[in-house]
Amino acid sequence: MGNPKAAFVIIGNEILSGRTKDKNLPYLAEKLGAIGVVLKEVRVVRDVEDEIAKAVNELRAEIDYVFTSGGIGPTHDDITSESIAKAFGVENTKHPEAYKRLEDYYEGRKEFNEARQKMGYTPEGASLINNPVSIAPGFNIENVYVMAGVPEIFQAMVDEVVPGLKAGKPIESRTVTTNLLEGDLAAGLNEIQGKYEDVDIGSYPHMHDGNLGVSVVARGMNVGMLEQVAEQITGMITNLGGKVLENPAVRGK
Amino acid sequence: MGNPKAAFVIIGNEILSGRTKDKNLPYLAEKLGAIGVVLKEVRVVRDVEDEIAKAVNELRAEIDYVFTSGGIGPTHDDITSESIAKAFGVENTKHPEAYKRLEDYYEGRKEFNEARQKMGYTPEGASLINNPVSIAPGFNIENVYVMAGVPEIFQAMVDEVVPGLKAGKPIESRTVTTNLLEGDLAAGLNEIQGKYEDVDIGSYPHMHDGNLGVSVVARGMNVGMLEQVAEQITGMITNLGGKVLENPAVRGK
Repeated sequence: MGNPKAAFVIIGNEILSGRTKDKNLPYLAEKLGAIGVVLKEVRVVRDVEDEIAKAVNELRAEIDYVFTSGGIGPTHDDITSESIAKAFGVENTKHPEAYKRLEDYYEGRKEFNEARQKMGYTPEGASLINNPVSIAPGFNIENVYVMAGVPEIFQAMVDEVVPGLKAGKPIESRTVTTNLLEGDLAAGLNEIQGKYEDVDIGSYPHMHDGNLGVSVVARGMNVGMLEQVAEQITGMITNLGGKVLENPAVRGK
Repeated sequence: MGNPKAAFVIIGNEILSGRTKDKNLPYLAEKLGAIGVVLKEVRVVRDVEDEIAKAVNELRAEIDYVFTSGGIGPTHDDITSESIAKAFGVENTKHPEAYKRLEDYYEGRKEFNEARQKMGYTPEGASLINNPVSIAPGFNIENVYVMAGVPEIFQAMVDEVVPGLKAGKPIESRTVTTNLLEGDLAAGLNEIQGKYEDVDIGSYPHMHDGNLGVSVVARGMNVGMLEQVAEQITGMITNLGGKVLENPAVRGK
């Protein structure tokens, strides 16, 4: 596929400890998919400067767009900006516009103390990503987009950034769900996959009411082809004596 | 910290498309934390042999334990076993015990066809991880543990594997939640963090009823020290005129 590719670096000990369940990956994935940008890899790393810088540098060298979440607040464990500056070999400096937004926002509300001033710093040369929830901006430097971890803020930032990306052909999908098991479907799916090189057929077992079942998802850019694939999968399931549990024409996610 | 370290590779296009929300990371993180194994990094990769092999090889070289989820079923997109074999430079071969379990299980139930036979193959030299839900086993080779993606099966496999790992000192935590904002707490938290090198203090903003608040989490192996840190954070919040919204003595996750 000639579509642009993206990676996502989730920064935060709280995700790795299991305390916080990430909600940002599905949101980003869906928004990117809708404009034909393929999310290729995700990494979750600790609040450690070298580990953040290493992940971002490895990914930005080989992938069109790198997004990060987390670590742009005022506390001692918010070290994303310094880490990204380090990754790019530039200074983490006061960003006049970011600083001014914060200064204006806190005036008459809260003390604009040293910790809050820190949120007005970005790697040299970065441009800002707006934060309509709590002002402190994210930023963009080259192909790296640094965003907040709080889902409400992350989503607003994604919504601002995504329309400005180079789009590919939107990735569509068709889903067929059945009570048959993967082992029943495997030979037929393999055969169908063999005929449609440009469709990516995935088979996802799940439990429902204590029974295993399967959702088969066809993804790709050619909707007509996806419809054909869904029809062939449905036909195969019927031939095998199985039930289709969901309308394959509904766009799956 | 001298505790063993772990990494987790989540294999599957369905996670990267946003279709499926991973539920396995928090489960694994918590079980590892309870025996003092630190989850250091997570990667989500596509169903692509080279990408799976690369992630596993990079991580197993530098981290004590590598866990994977997904891709061990019978369909064409289940390529984890072949990919791990490739990562280790060994053959993906019939595992007599795995093969026999599957053969016995399917006898009189379902055809033990080629697709299902595939689940009886592992990289040469692997030992099995039991699957009490649907028989097809996971496996362990050197420091890599390959498990199913379906949460019910993944959890059963984690429960089998974890007691056999080299344990560290359990990682405990204390959480203090407040209505104050991170910018109010930052200076005080920084000062407390400076006094307790062996405690990892994290500050996590969240939205509740449209208001921002903060949970401060202290994590470490010395419970007495965590209690001291929680007490000092509580004292700081009170001094700043804030409210503590949750009992800090409750063990946070």
